Amino acid sequence: MFDVTGIGNAIVDVLARAEESLLVEHKMAKGGMSLIDEAGAERLYAIMGPGIEASGGSAANTIAGIAALGGRTAYIGKVSDDQLGDVFTHDIRAVGVTYDTPRLRNGLATARCLIFVTPDAQRTMQTFLGATTQLGPEDLRMDAVTSSKVLYLEGYLWDQPRAKAAMRDAAIQAQKAGVKVALTLSDAFCVARFRDEFVELVHNHVDILFANESEVLSLSRAESFDAALQHVRGHCEIAALTRSEKGSVIVSGDEVHVIDAERHVRVVDTTGAGDAYAAGFLYAYTQGRDLATCGRLGSVMAAEVISHYGARVEGDVKALAAKVL
Amino acid sequence: MFDVTGIGNAIVDVLARAEESLLVEHKMAKGGMSLIDEAGAERLYAIMGPGIEASGGSAANTIAGIAALGGRTAYIGKVSDDQLGDVFTHDIRAVGVTYDTPRLRNGLATARCLIFVTPDAQRTMQTFLGATTQLGPEDLRMDAVTSSKVLYLEGYLWDQPRAKAAMRDAAIQAQKAGVKVALTLSDAFCVARFRDEFVELVHNHVDILFANESEVLSLSRAESFDAALQHVRGHCEIAALTRSEKGSVIVSGDEVHVIDAERHVRVVDTTGAGDAYAAGFLYAYTQGRDLATCGRLGSVMAAEVISHYGARVEGDVKALAAKVL
Repeated sequence: MFDVTGIGNAIVDVLARAEESLLVEHKMAKGGMSLIDEAGAERLYAIMGPGIEASGGSAANTIAGIAALGGRTAYIGKVSDDQLGDVFTHDIRAVGVTYDTPRLRNGLATARCLIFVTPDAQRTMQTFLGATTQLGPEDLRMDAVTSSKVLYLEGYLWDQPRAKAAMRDAAIQAQKAGVKVALTLSDAFCVARFRDEFVELVHNHVDILFANESEVLSLSRAESFDAALQHVRGHCEIAALTRSEKGSVIVSGDEVHVIDAERHVRVVDTTGAGDAYAAGFLYAYTQGRDLATCGRLGSVMAAEVISHYGARVEGDVKALAAKVL
Repeated sequence: MFDVTGIGNAIVDVLARAEESLLVEHKMAKGGMSLIDEAGAERLYAIMGPGIEASGGSAANTIAGIAALGGRTAYIGKVSDDQLGDVFTHDIRAVGVTYDTPRLRNGLATARCLIFVTPDAQRTMQTFLGATTQLGPEDLRMDAVTSSKVLYLEGYLWDQPRAKAAMRDAAIQAQKAGVKVALTLSDAFCVARFRDEFVELVHNHVDILFANESEVLSLSRAESFDAALQHVRGHCEIAALTRSEKGSVIVSGDEVHVIDAERHVRVVDTTGAGDAYAAGFLYAYTQGRDLATCGRLGSVMAAEVISHYGARVEGDVKALAAKVL
């Protein structure tokens, strides 16, 4: 019995500081996530400054955050039988997440995300998917999924045909079992690549949608945030739309909440902000809290993760949560 | 032609927060460094919280710090042909250090140091030496050593018989070539294990000695810091003795400097403080600065590294250095 089971790309992040000029020189789309192959990963790693390695992956960050708050969680994602696979497995289990997806043994390495953090604290991500491309239906622990209150999916999985098919199937089975299905859109470029599929998915199979401003604009082809808001309003039970320093807007039927971002945060690295927001939101949600409280805990968790390097919350987040719970 | 060539154990650090009770329960000596085997590393990693990985190694941290200040540096140390070996190699080259020690290919993994950071910001280290145990005379690039102003050695190497023999030989050859030989004692327990050898080495072959208070007490078997100071004074050309928040004391013949620690530092993690001090000191020294300036730059660098997680200095340390240079 879990509060939330997440499915996503199991990735180890490599974070390093970088100047804007480096992004320009190497044609990286600032603020976005691009997929690269192994040769590309080696080429970019060679021009990257000294870094730190830390477990990442969008849904994994969220699940680890929910576990840190005390939630019962499981995670499904594919790593390889290598050192970075050891790191990923250790870190997610160390916060109490149930994680037992079989490791890949065919030689594809554990996925890496090279994250270039510019002086304005924005992150630009270049991802080599490696072992995560081999996630398939055989890895889905449907017993965990159907015994959860919420199934949480990340949009990044849509870049992989086998994983995508498995996700759709998991969402449909979850709904039949009375499990709420949550989706994070992950990235505006990812949404653009699969817009029609996402629109259909959100309309038919998603109960709780997480998206930031650029993602929801991309999904709805809207010109303004408000137009996008009106568009998604009728398409899923709950939409939680994040807007960086402007906070978040939560809509559910006739209910609307406009939640402020936390103040006085020294922003070091925005990596993981959306993932941490979803963690706070879903923890409160699975504890039966009202939507305004869900949004406020989302803001608190996002503020924690952007105050330091790395995509996962650190320290005593239960104490932080006590401010709003 | 290098300012400083360093030789040391090439290690990737795994840092995680830990409560004091965990150290007690697993019999770890707080503040020290213990050697563990692969099974011990696996056992301790299993009880460790989620961590971050970052390149470490005492002499490597110092050499990377000197390079970050603009010094010309080379490093000699052994990693394996694995993912953590890639990380170590990337990070040290990314700051401009010349590093081309052949990688080990016999299956021993790259060394790892599990670092438990307690709420008081102290670090307790458990090191699995792995590939570093295979460093030997064939890895010494004597052309780099003898074309340097300073050869920098770490005491930790004395735990490995082949490396120890190579180090002694390198020190003797360096001295003949007019290269200053610097040694950091590394750890009070390490000094205790090899006290007689260190006393002989310092007396006969070391020009610049770095030690913290517990190390110099262990070396000299003295009861007080002042007694230890008097003891080392006659034994090497320069001794730089660090005392955490009390700053450092530098003695050289009749010259004595008492240098304050930087004020208003929010201490997050003391890992690498001594290594960063040595980096600041040696950069200024190889630029021909006076000993007081060397000590002040050491304090500035130590303050930088203890203000964040991880054992290497970050950000624009050249700008920080401009305060004292």
